Amino acid sequence: MNFKEEVRQYFENLQDQICNSLEELDTKGRFQEDLWQRPGGGGGKTRIIQGGLIEKGGVNFSAVYGDLPEVLKNRMETDGGQFFATGVSIVLHPVNAHMPIIHMNVRYFEMNDGRSWFGGGIDLTPHYVLKDQAQYFHQKLKEVCDAHHPTYYPAFKDWADEYFYIKHRQETRGIGGIFFDRLSEKESFPIAQRFAFVRDVGEVFVPIYTQLAEWNRDKTETEAHKNWQLIRRGRYVEFNLVYDQGTKFGLETSGRIESILMSLPLHASWQYNQVPDAGSPEAQSIELLQKGIDWIQ
Amino acid sequence: MNFKEEVRQYFENLQDQICNSLEELDTKGRFQEDLWQRPGGGGGKTRIIQGGLIEKGGVNFSAVYGDLPEVLKNRMETDGGQFFATGVSIVLHPVNAHMPIIHMNVRYFEMNDGRSWFGGGIDLTPHYVLKDQAQYFHQKLKEVCDAHHPTYYPAFKDWADEYFYIKHRQETRGIGGIFFDRLSEKESFPIAQRFAFVRDVGEVFVPIYTQLAEWNRDKTETEAHKNWQLIRRGRYVEFNLVYDQGTKFGLETSGRIESILMSLPLHASWQYNQVPDAGSPEAQSIELLQKGIDWIQ
Repeated sequence: MNFKEEVRQYFENLQDQICNSLEELDTKGRFQEDLWQRPGGGGGKTRIIQGGLIEKGGVNFSAVYGDLPEVLKNRMETDGGQFFATGVSIVLHPVNAHMPIIHMNVRYFEMNDGRSWFGGGIDLTPHYVLKDQAQYFHQKLKEVCDAHHPTYYPAFKDWADEYFYIKHRQETRGIGGIFFDRLSEKESFPIAQRFAFVRDVGEVFVPIYTQLAEWNRDKTETEAHKNWQLIRRGRYVEFNLVYDQGTKFGLETSGRIESILMSLPLHASWQYNQVPDAGSPEAQSIELLQKGIDWIQ
Repeated sequence: MNFKEEVRQYFENLQDQICNSLEELDTKGRFQEDLWQRPGGGGGKTRIIQGGLIEKGGVNFSAVYGDLPEVLKNRMETDGGQFFATGVSIVLHPVNAHMPIIHMNVRYFEMNDGRSWFGGGIDLTPHYVLKDQAQYFHQKLKEVCDAHHPTYYPAFKDWADEYFYIKHRQETRGIGGIFFDRLSEKESFPIAQRFAFVRDVGEVFVPIYTQLAEWNRDKTETEAHKNWQLIRRGRYVEFNLVYDQGTKFGLETSGRIESILMSLPLHASWQYNQVPDAGSPEAQSIELLQKGIDWIQ
């Protein structure tokens, strides 16, 4: 079995494992699956859950190939060629306002000129930022990173801060996490070792989300909490539609729109010039939506 | 009084007139005003209403000037210079799902190299598309256009179809209307005549909206209607954040974010792969969200 097929199979199984675990955790919801095919080659499985823990969540798997799309030629610094791309993407919007939104992506890309790389990451968007939970989240990611390379966590943590930034609001989408791209084979770092790292990222997702659910899923919510959740979801929509490269790419290349936009919440709200009271949990949360915070310390 | 000051004053008064008329029409809501200043020069008045007819509406006036922002140099085909821009922008999201969302914009732009032009338009986004009301709307706009030039309506109607297009959904935002830009002085068309046209566009807004309110504001709504309204608002958000040039420009130039994003609805919804039943009013509405429909006939 060649390497790309090995990666594809791994990602396809990862989707199954994660969906099974999430159904067990949610207890009420069941994933609905849509199979889709890409006109230019390949396709995917989009799975959506609307349950008791997760208000709306998507776990996408795709493996696509064919002629490199026009809009990618520039980015790939080539006049053309054949590409192969496979990955798993997850966004979960929870019911409870005290439970964070989570996003995970692992992906592999290959060109027929011999170039290939992994990308991905996990990041967390709590509606209410709690420092101890942020510390736990980053600690878990750091452990995964440190097991592979000492530069990974600091580099990929900074990358996430830069990437998940809502420039026009001058705030980060959430508390970040890790983000990486174009992890390719190097003399000191064979592609198999990159793959081992990416697998660990994919496999830490469920334990992290399970722990966060245990802490937050049954917390009491007031109307003010629900309203704040809707506002923060509005920001999530702003990030995804204005900045997210994966979303932009999907919309430009006429990908399967419903799979791309599964990342958007069931409900969101925009309230003119909503500014939380000084010292409120909402105001304290916004203050922590900044780049460069060392959550672990 | 020089021309740009005349235009500025006219637009400032237009905002007052429209806000007064809308308060009268709404009966319950009152506009809240925020004055803001632009660091580089000028400023504006943002007025927001949340009332009985209008769930969330904004009527913005601004008059800004200074060094041409970096991101505009390319578009303006110049290395720099001083610009002046003034305009009124309106977006009204109604309470009732049978009442359409309306958008109006009139604007004037001047460079110190002598170039100057008007832009603007009115377009309508009904959650439920009714052919007779669409005909009325386009007929009113055609009358305004025809009073100034026989090519205006057909040209600006097509321009609106092209502009208000959600490419990734392959559907128009609504039933269009008119859109125009860079209407500058020509031998056969002095700038004063352009201004007269723009004034007529600004002044037809209230009569049109008043008529639409009379027809729709008190219609009975079911839960299905409300839900469909939320979904269509989601599409409105997609258009404004992904395609709208004014929004993009505002976000890129760090304009006053709350004034720019006043166009977003109070509540919106994204439901995975929501497809209306064949033959339903929702499905019939979507079928009419296409370019090139002759609404007047």
